[in-house]
Amino acid sequence: MKRSDRLIGMTNYILEHPLELISLPFFTERYQVAKSSISEDLTIMDRMFQHEGIGYLESISGAAGGIRYIPKYDQEKSVAFVDTLAKRLNDPSRILPGGYLFMSDILGEPETVREIGRLFATAFAPLNIDVVLTVATKGIPLAYAVATFLNVPVVIARRDPKITEGSTVSINYVSGSSRKIQSMVLTRRSLEQGSTVCIIDDFMKAGGTIDGMKSLLKEFDATVAAIGVLAEAEDEEDERIVTDYTSLIQISAVDEKNKQIEVVKGNYFSQSEQ
Amino acid sequence: MKRSDRLIGMTNYILEHPLELISLPFFTERYQVAKSSISEDLTIMDRMFQHEGIGYLESISGAAGGIRYIPKYDQEKSVAFVDTLAKRLNDPSRILPGGYLFMSDILGEPETVREIGRLFATAFAPLNIDVVLTVATKGIPLAYAVATFLNVPVVIARRDPKITEGSTVSINYVSGSSRKIQSMVLTRRSLEQGSTVCIIDDFMKAGGTIDGMKSLLKEFDATVAAIGVLAEAEDEEDERIVTDYTSLIQISAVDEKNKQIEVVKGNYFSQSEQ
Repeated sequence: MKRSDRLIGMTNYILEHPLELISLPFFTERYQVAKSSISEDLTIMDRMFQHEGIGYLESISGAAGGIRYIPKYDQEKSVAFVDTLAKRLNDPSRILPGGYLFMSDILGEPETVREIGRLFATAFAPLNIDVVLTVATKGIPLAYAVATFLNVPVVIARRDPKITEGSTVSINYVSGSSRKIQSMVLTRRSLEQGSTVCIIDDFMKAGGTIDGMKSLLKEFDATVAAIGVLAEAEDEEDERIVTDYTSLIQISAVDEKNKQIEVVKGNYFSQSEQ
Repeated sequence: MKRSDRLIGMTNYILEHPLELISLPFFTERYQVAKSSISEDLTIMDRMFQHEGIGYLESISGAAGGIRYIPKYDQEKSVAFVDTLAKRLNDPSRILPGGYLFMSDILGEPETVREIGRLFATAFAPLNIDVVLTVATKGIPLAYAVATFLNVPVVIARRDPKITEGSTVSINYVSGSSRKIQSMVLTRRSLEQGSTVCIIDDFMKAGGTIDGMKSLLKEFDATVAAIGVLAEAEDEEDERIVTDYTSLIQISAVDEKNKQIEVVKGNYFSQSEQ
């Protein structure tokens, strides 16, 4: 097989298997070609992935070695993407009762959701995440997008226990915004004890829901390695109870009465500059 | 830029933009190369996409022409994938009360969900779908996977009306399995009138939920062009009220008492042979 053909097939394969260690013999067998040719292919791919701003190939040497595709989104493209997102959200007609923001249209776009996933994966790829956790419903697509780039499974907690899922672990938490006691459940067999977890959600005000997920994870002896929220919003009445999070978007000065809003970049970029 | 470099970048771009008409000048400008070179690149890519079983490139000639990537999953790979899925689901310990099946582990795997999306997109790509509709919660990842390959947005109906979404359209429907009257809502501004819609869900018994989505879509003057369900299960007490669907998996002979189950391929393959 010619190099040009091989590169197309390998690009497709590698992009679909981020963070996975792929041995060189896998490709030499797949394309019936010498190891030296595959090595050259991978050098070209590494250079071109960086040129396209989608990451790079990490080489692991030794007998058990190979390459891993690290999804690392170009900084300039990331800023441009978040700026565009902020501009789209910065629209008073999106203001909903309670200081929330209508984002379903944007969260319904697979391409936008994928880019959000790519950004969080860029930040969280070094953390050896085992699983992505979210709570139904709005965070689900974002959780899958992040999990796709981290190449790990998604686990979904629910606010309403379904009887159809077998035994569950349940916790109560205080919703920061409404001060109501709510419960959250996770099916026992959906998460292994001692996992390293990344929490993803679409929106955070005081952080009660995120804090609920953290409590739930304690019951599974899990480590929370990262918390990613698409949008954080100011909450006038409460102090934030979650502080160790990464946000792409920050919504401030929501004025329901005068239909005013201010949407800016979240703490994602200030964190990654450190 | 060399052909080898270009092919990597173009493969990435085209795979992320299925069914989208991409003009040749887009690539000639992006890679600063003659149209004839891009044409040759696309011929190589078309051949290699088919070789890898991930689809082909359709050429549209004329001034407004270009190419479109048609995601068409290889028949043999599709059968192998569904066989593996059926084998994994064919496990009596998955039986849940009410004749349901525990599938959350499988639905939590981004790679499995992507392949399911690829299969449905293969069947539905010719139907000019505008939007994918599902109802919260379990169908959401599948809906996004299908929508990603069809390159269209996802719209999510809910069983519990949220006040935070603006004006909604609501319908009542009879759940086929429980015979209870339930309601389903869709935010008014989430779906344009007259859209061509593909309904996706994870599980179907009598079809009450799917039928509810169809009723909801009538209120938006939408056309239901396709219905895809991952798994269909027999329902002893009811006759099926939805018949025009495509299923990947068929679950029969669920015997809760004796812990027996039989999982086979759905009607997907018998339909595509026609």
